Amino acid sequence: MTKVEQGNFFEDFTLGRILEHATPRTVTDGDAALYLSLTATRFAPNYSDPFARNLGLPRAPFDDMLAFHVAFGKTVPDISLNAIANLGYAGGVFGVPLYPGDTVTSTSEVIGIKENANHETGVVYVRSRGVNQRGESVVDYCRWVMVRKRDFSAPAPETVVPKLPDSVTVDQFVLPAGLDASRYDRKLAGSPWGFDDYTVGERIDHLGGMTIEEAEHAMATRLYQNNARVHFDQHVEKSGRFGRRIIYGGHIISLARAMTFNGLGNAFRIAALNGGKHVGPSFAGDTIYAWSEILAKEPLPGRTDLGALRIRTVATKNETCEAFPEKRLSTDPFDPGVVLDLDYWVLIPR
Amino acid sequence: MTKVEQGNFFEDFTLGRILEHATPRTVTDGDAALYLSLTATRFAPNYSDPFARNLGLPRAPFDDMLAFHVAFGKTVPDISLNAIANLGYAGGVFGVPLYPGDTVTSTSEVIGIKENANHETGVVYVRSRGVNQRGESVVDYCRWVMVRKRDFSAPAPETVVPKLPDSVTVDQFVLPAGLDASRYDRKLAGSPWGFDDYTVGERIDHLGGMTIEEAEHAMATRLYQNNARVHFDQHVEKSGRFGRRIIYGGHIISLARAMTFNGLGNAFRIAALNGGKHVGPSFAGDTIYAWSEILAKEPLPGRTDLGALRIRTVATKNETCEAFPEKRLSTDPFDPGVVLDLDYWVLIPR
Amino acid sequence: MTKVEQGNFFEDFTLGRILEHATPRTVTDGDAALYLSLTATRFAPNYSDPFARNLGLPRAPFDDMLAFHVAFGKTVPDISLNAIANLGYAGGVFGVPLYPGDTVTSTSEVIGIKENANHETGVVYVRSRGVNQRGESVVDYCRWVMVRKRDFSAPAPETVVPKLPDSVTVDQFVLPAGLDASRYDRKLAGSPWGFDDYTVGERIDHLGGMTIEEAEHAMATRLYQNNARVHFDQHVEKSGRFGRRIIYGGHIISLARAMTFNGLGNAFRIAALNGGKHVGPSFAGDTIYAWSEILAKEPLPGRTDLGALRIRTVATKNETCEAFPEKRLSTDPFDPGVVLDLDYWVLIPR
Repeated sequence: MTKVEQGNFFEDFTLGRILEHATPRTVTDGDAALYLSLTATRFAPNYSDPFARNLGLPRAPFDDMLAFHVAFGKTVPDISLNAIANLGYAGGVFGVPLYPGDTVTSTSEVIGIKENANHETGVVYVRSRGVNQRGESVVDYCRWVMVRKRDFSAPAPETVVPKLPDSVTVDQFVLPAGLDASRYDRKLAGSPWGFDDYTVGERIDHLGGMTIEEAEHAMATRLYQNNARVHFDQHVEKSGRFGRRIIYGGHIISLARAMTFNGLGNAFRIAALNGGKHVGPSFAGDTIYAWSEILAKEPLPGRTDLGALRIRTVATKNETCEAFPEKRLSTDPFDPGVVLDLDYWVLIPR
Repeated sequence: MTKVEQGNFFEDFTLGRILEHATPRTVTDGDAALYLSLTATRFAPNYSDPFARNLGLPRAPFDDMLAFHVAFGKTVPDISLNAIANLGYAGGVFGVPLYPGDTVTSTSEVIGIKENANHETGVVYVRSRGVNQRGESVVDYCRWVMVRKRDFSAPAPETVVPKLPDSVTVDQFVLPAGLDASRYDRKLAGSPWGFDDYTVGERIDHLGGMTIEEAEHAMATRLYQNNARVHFDQHVEKSGRFGRRIIYGGHIISLARAMTFNGLGNAFRIAALNGGKHVGPSFAGDTIYAWSEILAKEPLPGRTDLGALRIRTVATKNETCEAFPEKRLSTDPFDPGVVLDLDYWVLIPR
Repeated sequence: MTKVEQGNFFEDFTLGRILEHATPRTVTDGDAALYLSLTATRFAPNYSDPFARNLGLPRAPFDDMLAFHVAFGKTVPDISLNAIANLGYAGGVFGVPLYPGDTVTSTSEVIGIKENANHETGVVYVRSRGVNQRGESVVDYCRWVMVRKRDFSAPAPETVVPKLPDSVTVDQFVLPAGLDASRYDRKLAGSPWGFDDYTVGERIDHLGGMTIEEAEHAMATRLYQNNARVHFDQHVEKSGRFGRRIIYGGHIISLARAMTFNGLGNAFRIAALNGGKHVGPSFAGDTIYAWSEILAKEPLPGRTDLGALRIRTVATKNETCEAFPEKRLSTDPFDPGVVLDLDYWVLIPR
């Protein structure tokens, strides 16, 4: 019997199955520094202890997407090692902030399965949760992936497609304990704009592009212990679909989120991930740009210090965003165009 | 009204204006590890707590240039986002050492303005200061940059060119509290040479070259939250002046400083930056070399443990330094030759 | 007299000479994060404090190979700056685990010298030891290198070839104080296999390949303050033996060790390095693969929680390992084939 893990195939995902993912991970200042060096994020609370303490937090929490990636990375060996495509996210709620010294573990539950008509692949829906050492949820989200069957002749399971929420509602948000944004210092944060300054339908071109090198996306992806081979093995990938290593889509999310600082500099906390799609692949040498639209605004029940903005952020490659590009028309993965379409809630001072 | 920062233009710099820069930054062990992995520095006090404690310091302080870059990075969004050239430095004094856990913020004052004859650009002189969470100066220096005008027809301001010091004097140095180099262990530091062993006019070829990759200079520059676009956006830069991303000049300073270890291994503390020019641009793939000349020697008032050396360090690209090259003769930015000419004071045990 | 270190030559290595290496180094969480981002290692105790504490350790210790590289790096300026080849390792014993905050220093003793027939080079045998701030051994090993003579006409020293052990014996192991693997959680670690599941002669193809970029191996090597120029200086190396920078062989060891997780996921501690050879050079762009063979199994005296596996791990470049390749047939350094052949003991729960 082989001792080598080859990941789960479509047949291995039975409805209701719980997967307790391996490799607990204590995160540290080292992770935060690397994340900064790879993304150029500038949201003030994540890299200034005094700024965070002024908000009632014990110290600077990790960037929310770094927390997401660490939790996500653990699911890869069990969920998506044999995935052909990471199809989407929905219903993601960010829980307690993650701090240096915390330890993340992840579990997933299979919430839907649907074999494809070709009998070679199927779609698996999971709800994954990353928790800290106290069992508190750090992030909890659904995603669905297309996974290869091990045996094409295996009978199809009964199709169960879960009803996924269109969006997270404000009452589902987890506000960090002690958080009080009434003392939030916008000047120090680098942006004068707060909740009241944004209007629904407003679009923002975040300007500056970021070119990605192979070493950069690979270092990010290894940091999260995401072991999907398509990101790392050029010897195999040179004969693969694209002839190239593919950049982990999460790295694109991180770059796009970091870019939104320019225009949304006080949107300091991601509260929820309503949905998201990796519209196209990115490769080393691509330059990422992003633009955003304010989809909705909501006050937070009982709070005068904070409001919530629902934002759609679109990331492109090798195409600037002054025209707010919506969609890639080409099917050539190397053409410029949209690579990410993300719908999420942020907290922002009022 | 756009919410996107596009940086200041020449007209925005009025004499005496104070700019309080955004993005406070708590520095950590993670920054120090990344700095080492990107520069290969070997000065003993910066990466050994026992060595630093033996000198009377509480623990290993950050490399002085890392402290400089973090403070400098904050000034970029306000000072040099629209800069065409970073023209020079003068009168820089390094203050209290920076330690993991400290938080840096920066301010700048406009100390000079001079519109150029073409009415399209002008020179802005600023004095910038980075302070820690106690308001103590970490580094304080002048620099001048050439900045684009927003409106070429705007009237020229009155020209004010500040009198900048040729050099910092020894009495202006800030010696770290508690520093006592009488117990300094040269053998452990890796060099037998102290203050008395150097002679004015002595030249040292530091040998070993360091080739720079795109990922490396971009990671360094992002770590400092320096957001000047020329370092990151290949999609735009491929049509720019050089067809390439330009390496942040500060990364060249760091590499050159790290190289001086071989020959100046006990010059453990930069006390002051008398002046410096980025003589030419560097690009990924370039290999940096450095040589130094001892410009002056000074005892420190009332101290027998330490002296000061005034050093000129010249860095070249793609040209070794056995001939102590002074100047790049070509105007082709891709030709080998001098890229940096730096004049600074270091502290060294007697 | 030059102040620039050019390293020792063959004549400088006299039998019995002790070299106290410079540059003490306090290791931190930053080093651990960088190591992870460069190697993708997944052994649970090294990156989870709770997992490590459950084994009786105070917190997560560094990866053993990271500890090795830091200790090794210090020896390079004195031992191998002028080395033509790093010929082999033997008799390596890993001592106390290394933790963030510890400070490593290294010493070496010359235990053998043998001039080569060409009178231009010789082989130097050293025993090197890295210790922590309490003087406890972190790693202690022999290696031999081929070093250039300074003066080809210098008389040959008396040949002394040390008797090196074929392997370390189990009674020589240093077990971490307090280590108790009886509570080791295999599920959380990500592998169900323990000591009793492996059989002598068993071979494991570890699958997933890792492509190495210039920035990655250079960052790793600089992190260890290993200053061998062949890893860094493309301007010189383009006219050198290979026309390329050579990857530090230790980085290949780290990648191979990280890959063994898939198949040996509970082999959480390297106890000893019996021997090892860098069979061929690797270059940026190469993709590394690895396979292992169980050479021997030994119980540990008086312990029911742990056993020892003697493992041979072979790493290849640009050649997958399903056929367990033994040897590179070509002399072309750019041909695919074996680059590393390592023989070591690991501890694994019973």
